[in-house]
Amino acid sequence: MSHSAPFAWSPVGGPAAAAVLGVVLTRGPISRVGIARLTGLSSAAVTKAARPLIEAGYLVELPGVEHAASGVGRPASPLAVCADREFFAGVRISGDELVGVVTDLCAQIRNTARRPLGGHGVPVVEEVAALVGELLGASEEYRARTRRLGVSVSGDAEPVPEALLAGATGLDVTLENGVRALTVAEQWFGEGVGASPFALVTLGAEVGCGLVVDGRLVTGAYGVAGEIGHLPVADGGPRCRCGGRGCLAAYASREAITAACRAVTGRDVTPEAAAALARAGDEEVRAVFARAGRAVGLALAAVVNLVGPERIVVAGDEAAACDLLEHQIRETLAARAYGGASQCPLVLRPLRPEGWARGAAVVALRGLFPDGPIDGRWNGRRSSFPFFR
Amino acid sequence: MSHSAPFAWSPVGGPAAAAVLGVVLTRGPISRVGIARLTGLSSAAVTKAARPLIEAGYLVELPGVEHAASGVGRPASPLAVCADREFFAGVRISGDELVGVVTDLCAQIRNTARRPLGGHGVPVVEEVAALVGELLGASEEYRARTRRLGVSVSGDAEPVPEALLAGATGLDVTLENGVRALTVAEQWFGEGVGASPFALVTLGAEVGCGLVVDGRLVTGAYGVAGEIGHLPVADGGPRCRCGGRGCLAAYASREAITAACRAVTGRDVTPEAAAALARAGDEEVRAVFARAGRAVGLALAAVVNLVGPERIVVAGDEAAACDLLEHQIRETLAARAYGGASQCPLVLRPLRPEGWARGAAVVALRGLFPDGPIDGRWNGRRSSFPFFR
Ligand SMILES: [Zn+2]
Ligand SMILES: [Zn+2]
Repeated sequence: MSHSAPFAWSPVGGPAAAAVLGVVLTRGPISRVGIARLTGLSSAAVTKAARPLIEAGYLVELPGVEHAASGVGRPASPLAVCADREFFAGVRISGDELVGVVTDLCAQIRNTARRPLGGHGVPVVEEVAALVGELLGASEEYRARTRRLGVSVSGDAEPVPEALLAGATGLDVTLENGVRALTVAEQWFGEGVGASPFALVTLGAEVGCGLVVDGRLVTGAYGVAGEIGHLPVADGGPRCRCGGRGCLAAYASREAITAACRAVTGRDVTPEAAAALARAGDEEVRAVFARAGRAVGLALAAVVNLVGPERIVVAGDEAAACDLLEHQIRETLAARAYGGASQCPLVLRPLRPEGWARGAAVVALRGLFPDGPIDGRWNGRRSSFPFFR
Repeated sequence: MSHSAPFAWSPVGGPAAAAVLGVVLTRGPISRVGIARLTGLSSAAVTKAARPLIEAGYLVELPGVEHAASGVGRPASPLAVCADREFFAGVRISGDELVGVVTDLCAQIRNTARRPLGGHGVPVVEEVAALVGELLGASEEYRARTRRLGVSVSGDAEPVPEALLAGATGLDVTLENGVRALTVAEQWFGEGVGASPFALVTLGAEVGCGLVVDGRLVTGAYGVAGEIGHLPVADGGPRCRCGGRGCLAAYASREAITAACRAVTGRDVTPEAAAALARAGDEEVRAVFARAGRAVGLALAAVVNLVGPERIVVAGDEAAACDLLEHQIRETLAARAYGGASQCPLVLRPLRPEGWARGAAVVALRGLFPDGPIDGRWNGRRSSFPFFR
């Protein structure tokens, strides 16, 4: 759930401005004609909506280029984002550490910092404020042009109230579920651009999933959606924290993999040591990872068969050891995707702590868009722009 | 996939008219103020959009009632649908039978007819035309005011080209996947009204699922979505037609249940005989149904955990014997729904052949709405009206 405090100024004055800024952010540099095509707005409406964004310094007109094809008419002057016009802070709070970033308007990471937690009795809110102070202190520009902070909290950390964070940092704070934040970051600035539906799956300590349908994050009528960790992939099977048996997380979470490796080796291995044993060829440990990969493949098959994403990204943290899972994931998904769903490309990629923090910063960036468009309705398909039809 | 031929006249002239007609169809009788609230249109825009719908005889103004609360101001004159203004034909083609209905504008079944197939070498298209002739022949009104035919084809039937059906019947024909047609019928005229997301699951010969997210049917980037029959509910398990093992359909389709009952009894039982044995207390046969019910519960858990529907309808045909599955379905879903998703109400109901035909007729009715609104964006939540924001 996102709660955006209302006090930070935004250049976005209405849905047309939101659509124009959104398209240039995700697809720019792009001509006004291109924006009109993607948004369904008239060229005149694009020009009108772009003007205040240019005046406020968020967009800039690049030098015009003659139309190579026709050689006639007004030169097209593409609009581009002024990446340095505003900066955003993002912080990931986990059980034992804070990781923070500063990003620019294009979601590029410009500065990073870390801070251990829990060692010296300082409240988390103060630690966050200190981290943000360190991040922004690196540059006069960051200090002057950062007004929004996004925060996500991992499953093993204490919740922190938004209002306390806002008070301690002096920034407009938005708390968001980490997987949803990553999904929105990917939807806007990654593999999710133009993909509808789109799915992001995280592996490692947090087995989660974000779904985007028709340009909007699916949040569920009862606050539950994307809970891929508790998808049953077996009838029976190992016990899950949720009380069920055979949930994906009971096979494929870092905790589950490590516990299974301890069981087969009889040793108190760490997640890293378990992965090392598998890479060194320990057959029993390899079988644990293979079983986890198969479970992930079955759960991804459920996602593609039910929701039909155009693309899936699987992001695994270091301990997820995706290299040990990938073969089984791909093989199982290929075998179980139904019909045309087997065309869905699967992108596997590492997920570093800074990636979580960047997701939180993108949530802060979303705060520029006060309304529906924050869900990325301009993601490049005509069908995603029903409100302009 | 829906292909609506363009020649039948529609009273819907634009998105505002579509929203007004849609709201009155699904929520009427309703005052203009109520329509404005649900659509986000201004009262003036509602009045303007309603006028041609009233003039064309699709809507009628009911006698005004004084505001009981205030006793002042103009009396509110609710708008209602003229159910008899237009009729719609719907036909379900299965391997051995045609089932057809005529519905009115409110999707009420007004006439039904059946026709066996395959017995006398007549092409299916001609049989459909004869059935439609019989359906409409029952009343001068039906003949005069039916211009649209919806058709759905079951998995065991031959595909029939839309254009041939249009030529043979003289109607504007839309072919649609049966489960999707049922889902839209439920979204507009049943449990799906106002529910977002919404899921409909069919059991019996066709194990399928339709999903509605943000007021739109999810169709999938590669034409595959809602394929709940091929959701893996076990790692391993019985072989499915799709080549996989442990798919829901491999446990819970009529074919799978009957085959398993034959295996445990050693007798060539029909689906009906298998259900009768279970109802008579045969423990081995009861176990087959229980296992099928558990598989359905696991698949429904996957749907609620991933997509978070506000409500789920499970519609089972006669041979699905839902009475023998219900206990296990509910118990398994309750155990495996994660967190708040356990609040999702589950409605079980019988699905008769006329129900499939009615779904097809609602697809024809959808043809009145030429654009995006056909996906039911006015389903009663403000968040479903982004195009008017
Ligand atoms: Zn679980
Ligand atoms: Zn299958």
